Amino acid sequence: MQTYLDCLACFMSQIVRVGQLLELPERDCLNMLCEFSADLAEIELADPPPKTSIRLYQMISRYVGSPDPFAAIKRESTEKALALYPRLQKRVAAAPDPLSLAAKFAVAGNVIDFGVASQFDLAQELDRVLDHGAFGHWQEELFRAALEKAEWLLYLGDNTGETVMDRLFIETIVRETATPVKYVVREAPIINDATFADALAAGLDACATIISSGCSAPGTVLELCSPEFLELFHQAPLIISKGQGNYETLSGVSAPLFFFLKAKCRVVADHLGVELGDLNLVRG
Amino acid sequence: MQTYLDCLACFMSQIVRVGQLLELPERDCLNMLCEFSADLAEIELADPPPKTSIRLYQMISRYVGSPDPFAAIKRESTEKALALYPRLQKRVAAAPDPLSLAAKFAVAGNVIDFGVASQFDLAQELDRVLDHGAFGHWQEELFRAALEKAEWLLYLGDNTGETVMDRLFIETIVRETATPVKYVVREAPIINDATFADALAAGLDACATIISSGCSAPGTVLELCSPEFLELFHQAPLIISKGQGNYETLSGVSAPLFFFLKAKCRVVADHLGVELGDLNLVRG
Repeated sequence: MQTYLDCLACFMSQIVRVGQLLELPERDCLNMLCEFSADLAEIELADPPPKTSIRLYQMISRYVGSPDPFAAIKRESTEKALALYPRLQKRVAAAPDPLSLAAKFAVAGNVIDFGVASQFDLAQELDRVLDHGAFGHWQEELFRAALEKAEWLLYLGDNTGETVMDRLFIETIVRETATPVKYVVREAPIINDATFADALAAGLDACATIISSGCSAPGTVLELCSPEFLELFHQAPLIISKGQGNYETLSGVSAPLFFFLKAKCRVVADHLGVELGDLNLVRG
Repeated sequence: MQTYLDCLACFMSQIVRVGQLLELPERDCLNMLCEFSADLAEIELADPPPKTSIRLYQMISRYVGSPDPFAAIKRESTEKALALYPRLQKRVAAAPDPLSLAAKFAVAGNVIDFGVASQFDLAQELDRVLDHGAFGHWQEELFRAALEKAEWLLYLGDNTGETVMDRLFIETIVRETATPVKYVVREAPIINDATFADALAAGLDACATIISSGCSAPGTVLELCSPEFLELFHQAPLIISKGQGNYETLSGVSAPLFFFLKAKCRVVADHLGVELGDLNLVRG
């Protein structure tokens, strides 16, 4: 997906919102706005937004003086999600169709995203799934057919905390279909995206092999991924791609992709052809 | 009210949204974003946002190649509002408290605003008033007490189309209290703000004297107003100030002000201490 003009305006909003969330002084936020906008003309609109946002979040890290400004926020997200986990696990086990419910919880978990908003309610979003919340595309039958045939699957993670719902979904996949899963994390910290350590904290090592994409964008920019990851990506018989960042970077790529994401901005909702806020399961 | 960092990000969104609304080529919108952001460091945060947005809308006018890029949109807004007028007039005449209902319609009309959004539903907003829609501050008793004592009143207009609801409110004021009204418009076209011609098209000359503030900002920046207007402003026993732009420029000013506005952005809602979208009548 290309970078739209709305994305450029959104980058400016992100600087302000994230600066305030990380309690940076107003002067620093203003300087970041000026610094980022000074190079606005150099942004390649053909690039997907997550590629451009590498520069944005590296700048924020520099101002905060930390390679992982969201470390505390990520810890808290994992703790909150783990506190919900036993209840969700029981609900999935008792459901008439555990795989379907676990998939829905996994997408609802995608509400966690400090790049898009500073506030959200994970528990409420999970409850809404049970009340037949707003779904856009939901091609579950296509996904199940692909899952039945796949010898293994590549699962591209997204946000920290959402990782716990990913774990529940993967555990359900493994229990129902015995399909081995490789869970993919970002190479280095960016926003609240899950790294190796964040995936470990969510307990994903118990049900999947955790690997890095080699890419530090908040998405999967193939040209920035490691050769080892690219080999797996091109061999994978089935790929689950979580979240907007992975959708923005992989939506035009030819691969056996299924996108699981909440449409959290107007640009992505329009690109998907759904309403803002809808939960989606859609074949690539 | 000062300019907040969120306002700077909002200026960038406005460039994109207004550029798209006016069907400017994407390249022009990108150039406008670059041009505006190049001078970001020079923006005085102590200034109210409407003062800064003069530069923004002058730039848009230059790119469009017209001193009044919103002329067609404004004509359409007036026509749509005039089509609703007979029905609203009947409702006000039949209401147990005509002044109160006319005041509410006047604030509901403030939903029209192409600076904040490209889409809104005027008829729906007016209907919501009848269904006891969301009100924040609503100091109607204070306003009525002030109105009873005032020998005349200054009414600071805002958006074109909203002018028709202003007319209905002023007609009701004149019928109930015989208070003469001076209706204030912008000196020159900016966004969809009402100028002399726009007020005339709404029929305001039949119930009020139409005057210009001398200021071409989408608000009332006193230091940019004409001496003639300032004299009236300082003499006025009562001032009705419509909309966010007038609120942003006059909220700290010592004068017998009553602000009538819908809180259309987070920054103004927080400044007022109300929810986003609330309708307000609040003493200055």
